[in-house]
Amino acid sequence: MASDPKIEEVLAPLRLAVKEQGDLVRKLKADGAPEIDVKKAVNELKARKKVLEDKELSLAPSVATFDRARMEDLLKRRFFYDQSFAIYGGITGQYDFGPMGCALKSNMINTWRQFFVLEEQMLEVDCSILTPEPVLKASGHVDRFADLMVKDVKNGECFRLDHLIKNHLEKLAAAKDATQALKDECTDIVIKLDGMTKDEMAAIVQKFNMKSPITGNDLTEPIEFNLMFGTQIGPTGLVKGFLRPETAQGIFVNFKRLLEFNQGKLPFAAAQIGNSFRNEISPRSGLIRVREFTMCEIEHFCDPQLKDHPKFENVKDIVMTLYSACNQMDGKSAQQITIGEAVSSGLVANETLGYFMARIQQFMLKIGILPDRLRFRQHMGNEMAHYACDCWDAECLTSYGWIECVGCADRSAYDLTQHTNATGVKLVAEKKLPAPKTIEVTEVVPNKAALGKVFKKEAKNITELLAKLSLSDVEAIGKNLADKGEHVLDVNGSDVSLNSDMIAVKTTSKTIHVEEITPSVIEPSFGVGRIMYSLLEHSFQMREGDEQRGYFSLPPIVAPLKCSVLPLSNNAEFAPFVKKISSALTSVDISHKVDDSSGSIGRRYARTDEIAIPYGITIDFDTLKEPHSVTLRERDSMKQVRIGVDEVSQVVRDLARSRLTWSDVEAKYPKFEQQEASTK
Amino acid sequence: MASDPKIEEVLAPLRLAVKEQGDLVRKLKADGAPEIDVKKAVNELKARKKVLEDKELSLAPSVATFDRARMEDLLKRRFFYDQSFAIYGGITGQYDFGPMGCALKSNMINTWRQFFVLEEQMLEVDCSILTPEPVLKASGHVDRFADLMVKDVKNGECFRLDHLIKNHLEKLAAAKDATQALKDECTDIVIKLDGMTKDEMAAIVQKFNMKSPITGNDLTEPIEFNLMFGTQIGPTGLVKGFLRPETAQGIFVNFKRLLEFNQGKLPFAAAQIGNSFRNEISPRSGLIRVREFTMCEIEHFCDPQLKDHPKFENVKDIVMTLYSACNQMDGKSAQQITIGEAVSSGLVANETLGYFMARIQQFMLKIGILPDRLRFRQHMGNEMAHYACDCWDAECLTSYGWIECVGCADRSAYDLTQHTNATGVKLVAEKKLPAPKTIEVTEVVPNKAALGKVFKKEAKNITELLAKLSLSDVEAIGKNLADKGEHVLDVNGSDVSLNSDMIAVKTTSKTIHVEEITPSVIEPSFGVGRIMYSLLEHSFQMREGDEQRGYFSLPPIVAPLKCSVLPLSNNAEFAPFVKKISSALTSVDISHKVDDSSGSIGRRYARTDEIAIPYGITIDFDTLKEPHSVTLRERDSMKQVRIGVDEVSQVVRDLARSRLTWSDVEAKYPKFEQQEASTK
Repeated sequence: MASDPKIEEVLAPLRLAVKEQGDLVRKLKADGAPEIDVKKAVNELKARKKVLEDKELSLAPSVATFDRARMEDLLKRRFFYDQSFAIYGGITGQYDFGPMGCALKSNMINTWRQFFVLEEQMLEVDCSILTPEPVLKASGHVDRFADLMVKDVKNGECFRLDHLIKNHLEKLAAAKDATQALKDECTDIVIKLDGMTKDEMAAIVQKFNMKSPITGNDLTEPIEFNLMFGTQIGPTGLVKGFLRPETAQGIFVNFKRLLEFNQGKLPFAAAQIGNSFRNEISPRSGLIRVREFTMCEIEHFCDPQLKDHPKFENVKDIVMTLYSACNQMDGKSAQQITIGEAVSSGLVANETLGYFMARIQQFMLKIGILPDRLRFRQHMGNEMAHYACDCWDAECLTSYGWIECVGCADRSAYDLTQHTNATGVKLVAEKKLPAPKTIEVTEVVPNKAALGKVFKKEAKNITELLAKLSLSDVEAIGKNLADKGEHVLDVNGSDVSLNSDMIAVKTTSKTIHVEEITPSVIEPSFGVGRIMYSLLEHSFQMREGDEQRGYFSLPPIVAPLKCSVLPLSNNAEFAPFVKKISSALTSVDISHKVDDSSGSIGRRYARTDEIAIPYGITIDFDTLKEPHSVTLRERDSMKQVRIGVDEVSQVVRDLARSRLTWSDVEAKYPKFEQQEASTK
Repeated sequence: MASDPKIEEVLAPLRLAVKEQGDLVRKLKADGAPEIDVKKAVNELKARKKVLEDKELSLAPSVATFDRARMEDLLKRRFFYDQSFAIYGGITGQYDFGPMGCALKSNMINTWRQFFVLEEQMLEVDCSILTPEPVLKASGHVDRFADLMVKDVKNGECFRLDHLIKNHLEKLAAAKDATQALKDECTDIVIKLDGMTKDEMAAIVQKFNMKSPITGNDLTEPIEFNLMFGTQIGPTGLVKGFLRPETAQGIFVNFKRLLEFNQGKLPFAAAQIGNSFRNEISPRSGLIRVREFTMCEIEHFCDPQLKDHPKFENVKDIVMTLYSACNQMDGKSAQQITIGEAVSSGLVANETLGYFMARIQQFMLKIGILPDRLRFRQHMGNEMAHYACDCWDAECLTSYGWIECVGCADRSAYDLTQHTNATGVKLVAEKKLPAPKTIEVTEVVPNKAALGKVFKKEAKNITELLAKLSLSDVEAIGKNLADKGEHVLDVNGSDVSLNSDMIAVKTTSKTIHVEEITPSVIEPSFGVGRIMYSLLEHSFQMREGDEQRGYFSLPPIVAPLKCSVLPLSNNAEFAPFVKKISSALTSVDISHKVDDSSGSIGRRYARTDEIAIPYGITIDFDTLKEPHSVTLRERDSMKQVRIGVDEVSQVVRDLARSRLTWSDVEAKYPKFEQQEASTK
């Protein structure tokens, strides 16, 4: 994107502005400046980065010429997808996939499963969507998974706070009587919004005296709105649950079973394909921000000390576009670099992370994402999620800008540790020690008979509690027993007195051969809807000279249908050939569509192009002659060959499975010349 | 099931008892007896049917010898599936599928998609799970989708009413001091529970003075508990929504788009694979009754006058086990009959319903359901859902009895009509008339200018309302205008006065070429979890003479993995062969598992049998010699052949895709004799 010298000339001052601010942030951090100063400087850095990026985007030819309205019209008209429940007025942020969208989506998912789960022998699981509250409390979602909003104090209407401020200020700045100073202030605030705190935003609402844009009523103070959908599980109304906001937690809570399935060995990866839900405050931007969506997630569990990968060798020469945190701070553009170099130079933290980044790129290209509209952007320190220790997003360039489609994060031991703490169930793996080790263990040894006699059923809870105590707690008990002959233990809120008959604190030597480790997790997480949307934009084409003829040049592997079967006219003699070819295609598992409607062949080709069908078989009058033959047409080139009826289904199958290329077919079979335009 | 004369002798009096009662029900209906008498007689009929069925089941050899605990232990141990969130104490009615269960499920679903969607060129869609309330109000779920429960008045604990009564009475009857009269009464009530009304059950609770079985506290009156999970869509808390209880409604609300996609033509079928949710009061019976589950549903839309099917010819000779409503009332067993005969005799209502029943059977057998444990049971008049006009359930025999796995219902025009009424959007298709027809149309013609002047924005609502009126309403308006010069219209609850300047009632002649019809819907609806559970029971086997070695004889098409690769020992020379064969299998898309753990080969075969892997490749010392060869083992027969390293992956692929049978392989390759037992 940064190769055109004229463009670079425009960008140069913006790049410099970013770099100056990036250097300031680095300096403040190095000097140990107060957090508030660092934060302010980072916000300014983000703002400058955004100005640079917006300018860069506006100069990108693919973005400048793309006609989103035309593509969306086609998607709607041929029911790739459309708003859910439209006859009931519809709900924003929810979409139904029609036959073509559904087939595209399921082909993408099957390709993903083949590419990741089967090739890497991952353990695929399928876990519950309804999740009880304690699980999401432990994961941090109950407390932290929220957006800010304000409400109309009279009618309760809700507005996402950042959107409200942005809209209000943009309107102010656009007013005829706006002074330059006001305009500058508004622009400055809008650019910095992303990094602002709740209080900073509240101050802006107050300063500009913002009201509801719909009613003019006053607005509430900013409210943190949790984005999870809540419900009750079971009839009592007492078991609170949520629809999962990501599929990952289902894998973490099954860690022990999966480790056991893998015969106790690390590393291994688990994968899950499924729906997640986020109750967005005011979803916009089509498929990019929706309330329910399909994710494909991988959790690769490994020894935190051993993040190399046995298959890294296979991918190390793959060239990738990496946009490092450092380059972002320096105002530089993304760089082309092999993943091998990126890992060995330390730019990418470890081989496993690098391996998955390379595999993500291979997958994206395989399904048809354009290489020059794909980059991997590293999270800067201040934007990393609370659980991550390094994170790279695969971003696709669309008419909405660069959008995050796949996250690839090193979540370290965060999740397993959280669930271990919440449940007391140790989510760890055993690692063989280089040599056996003798250790001293100090623990509370219960006298079960004595405890049982006094505490009956409660005794079990007490012993369980004692087994979970930390070393310092154990030592405190030992001291109390020695000093006072008793220790008062808090058992679920009630005090229980234990004496030396019931418990003893003992230190023993044990020889251990293994140590327990909490695995690190590398997580590639794919948003299927966002990838699909990017893919649709990347593959949307217009026939040269005929702007009415839009179509999608999707690769056969993901195209909703692989082939069309078109009788030239409704001549009855064509029917048996249509039936024969359709059966032959079905028997080799090639999805196809028979279009025997009355339009001209050119018009019908255009219709099949619209739904991305890569190959078309036409039955014409020559088909009736022996040896029976048909034409086979390729969508992107619109070239045709003449081919025998008996072999055409095999050829289409081999094309669809990438065992043959269209050039192979053109080389082998006679060209068929017919102008599509002439038959329109 | 009914062929053994000894068994038939036992069943004869029970069959007679059913028939007598069935005849009584018929007579009462024919005589037009009061509804309450018919209802009582039907309950007694159901009770007698249940006694017959229970006895029949208890005599079935597969049920008598099946060891469910052993199978469940294996399923849990090898993580086919297990309770969700177990480390947090778990939630009843929710299950996570581990690697093997997930692969089995996704293979079943892919087979289904191939068998139905692709072969029949159905329109597959993928619709939203979160559904706004008005949609489910129209479908009847908000009002009618409920079970009865009672609550502990003190702690709020909930009990499903029928379960509570059953448990209470069974306990009473089992008490030492129970009189024969009490025992009989209890048995009688338990048998009839299924058909009882809320009031009848409330009376029983009162009569026996039932309390909470846990606390002994009083219970509330029976409460209807809606089984849908409720939530709020968006942040206002004002848009009520539910998790869909079935996938069907998503298809119905998209009917217009789908019809258009099909170029306006009937018939066509739409299909959807996805999750649905039911908030069961107290789920039991493992996978059979759960709170979230995957369904595969088909909605076949057709002209209500034309329910024949072009491909019925292909299936008409298929023999099926049909258990008609009539046979159920007569105490007879199910009958073997071709689907062609069943349709032509009127037993099955029409060809389309019959075609789908036959296809359902083909699918079930293809994935491994045993033919002698599959039957199609017709709903009796009184158990049909409110929307259905004929319904056959594909039932599988399991250790829980016959369970419904696939419903196949003729829902007539119910759903489309309901959504049309609720939205005013006509969900109809156009049907060409045999000849053009002239009709008189009486309608309200609005004077839009006059209405707009008076009612401003509201005018649009008024004209929309006027366009939707029935003929009798229109005539009433005409009368009012003529008599009083005005008509008062109820517009969303407020009265609006319309005079002759604003509206007129006119009758005009129109020539029409098409008529609008509301299509009928034939719905095959598959419960994936229930089919999977039945399949696991049907395929669970024990090695003769070694009851520790349980395994699943799943057909290759659905088996979680197709092949294992086992080096005989950890000899380093085997490793390159393992790698080579694994890569070759991956390249032909054959899922497999390398087991290079240290167990004996016999033990490792047993482990791969447990997870239903149909084929096993073993690398042994002979493999190292030229020409390199391996053994290939088949799971069910445990037979082995010797086969070249270079061809084994192709052979496994052809076996897994049913292009080769094991007999073919045994005929072609030399037998390999080695006792598994000896290597244990």
